[in-house]
Amino acid sequence: MAHSIANKGTVAIIGAGVIGRSWAATFVAGGYTVKISDPNPEAGKRVFEDLPNSIAEIPQTSFSAADIKALMKHVTVTPDTDEAVKGAVAVQENGPEDVGFKSKLFAQLEAVADADALLISSSSGITPDKIGAKMKNPGRVLIGHPFNPPHMLPLVEICGGPNVDPALIEKAVTFYRDLGKAPAVLTRAVPGFVANRLQCVLVMEAIRIVESGVVDIRTLDQIVLNSLGPRWASVGPLLAGHFGGGPGGLAGIVEHILNKLAAGMGIAPVSDATIKTLGKLVNEAYPPEDMPRLAKMRDERTEAILDFRAHQTV
Amino acid sequence: MAHSIANKGTVAIIGAGVIGRSWAATFVAGGYTVKISDPNPEAGKRVFEDLPNSIAEIPQTSFSAADIKALMKHVTVTPDTDEAVKGAVAVQENGPEDVGFKSKLFAQLEAVADADALLISSSSGITPDKIGAKMKNPGRVLIGHPFNPPHMLPLVEICGGPNVDPALIEKAVTFYRDLGKAPAVLTRAVPGFVANRLQCVLVMEAIRIVESGVVDIRTLDQIVLNSLGPRWASVGPLLAGHFGGGPGGLAGIVEHILNKLAAGMGIAPVSDATIKTLGKLVNEAYPPEDMPRLAKMRDERTEAILDFRAHQTV
Repeated sequence: MAHSIANKGTVAIIGAGVIGRSWAATFVAGGYTVKISDPNPEAGKRVFEDLPNSIAEIPQTSFSAADIKALMKHVTVTPDTDEAVKGAVAVQENGPEDVGFKSKLFAQLEAVADADALLISSSSGITPDKIGAKMKNPGRVLIGHPFNPPHMLPLVEICGGPNVDPALIEKAVTFYRDLGKAPAVLTRAVPGFVANRLQCVLVMEAIRIVESGVVDIRTLDQIVLNSLGPRWASVGPLLAGHFGGGPGGLAGIVEHILNKLAAGMGIAPVSDATIKTLGKLVNEAYPPEDMPRLAKMRDERTEAILDFRAHQTV
Repeated sequence: MAHSIANKGTVAIIGAGVIGRSWAATFVAGGYTVKISDPNPEAGKRVFEDLPNSIAEIPQTSFSAADIKALMKHVTVTPDTDEAVKGAVAVQENGPEDVGFKSKLFAQLEAVADADALLISSSSGITPDKIGAKMKNPGRVLIGHPFNPPHMLPLVEICGGPNVDPALIEKAVTFYRDLGKAPAVLTRAVPGFVANRLQCVLVMEAIRIVESGVVDIRTLDQIVLNSLGPRWASVGPLLAGHFGGGPGGLAGIVEHILNKLAAGMGIAPVSDATIKTLGKLVNEAYPPEDMPRLAKMRDERTEAILDFRAHQTV
């Protein structure tokens, strides 16, 4: 991430809650002037208390106290949405998860913002078509859904409405990538997008296991910390499964292990046709000739995670 | 993990497949003499080719080539199960996942092994009562289910049959902990134990998302790598959810977010009674006064993971 001070233009942040403040830290540290709008009279106080700490926490950066003080001069807070939005290159909205609020706000943004400004919602649950329902051009709405807190976790899930212009998606990808984020484009909005769907199925099963008395809460967390966690932080679940499936790879582990286990857990099996397709797709995603390098990458990362934890003192 | 050379007695390994060889590396590096039994005439060749590399990969150790050469003198391979097992302090079985094979083998182990030897199966799918069905004392059977590969990942899921002696479980916990492993005791065997159940629900959902065309395989893995993976490698899914749930903690995130998302995904909700219990249990597992330290631990770990990946060259 660039350590440059505010020379890329202005980003408007709507809403100075936890997510809005974390985004504000990300954008100002990434070289933007940040204008935050929030009707709460306490918003300014919270922003100026909170942002210096958040900026200091951003991975792969090391701002001095003086740097941070200088950056904070490029942050303003106002109750006036129009004032924040006018002239901004991008708007990142973090208001209440309420369709009425968001659809009204985005019509206002469309009227006030520059014609080429990115209009992005952090919404985790409302689809772009609903957010844009009152706009002249609803296709301008994008979702840029972060993983909390945005100033620390790289993921931003991006999607648009049914008729979104691919060039607009590409512009958002570039915008976030330039900030050091890891944008992931979804071809369409689905409830929970991807990360929260995956979190949902795993946490719900974890709670059921605890509920059934097989292990307690701490033991469940320790189990993940010492197995799936380091693997999924190293290569993700599908490549991890591809490695774990022996000669059959991901398709093999689904056919021989997961489908059988799933049946006993009341989960519908993956069809034979999908297993076949999966075998093809996974070999395209991770070509056989690249697997030795990927295995080395996985093992180095896993070992680094275990080493860090073993020597951590906090 | 100790760098001492074979002075803790003998561990017998049944089966020189991928898991058996990985366990053999773990035990010999942890100070045991290792006797591996396998009827395959190629077994010895594979063991002596494979183990030096595996020993070198064990996290938090740094054996020199000379150390490894010395360790390998404490590894023998034989086709004779009785010869491997006699006088061993523990037997780690890694044969075929076949009830007939395992139940016959464990009756043999009972007849040949020392009366106080640990008799442990690496089985991922057969319950201890079935494995012990032909023994005089079926209560001696333990599951010590590793996460692949055992020489790298710390987790060992431990459980016994319905009437297992808690002291025997404790003995197995001490045995694995002394090797630098992270044993997790399950109060009873459930299909897939814990880690594979969690893996199953997440990977099955991941495949469904890919099947539906929302993201491709690489994007799905990248999403986890940049969000859930680092979190779950830092604090586990339930503590991560407890942090992510705002003032309501884990109970709040289940009630307000996951239960609603789950409903749309065809997953049964967590009951109000369980949500209430959960709120109590999670505050016992992670006391409010310890949360600031845990948050710091989480963030330091997350940052270390992202930093390592950013600077990794492989």
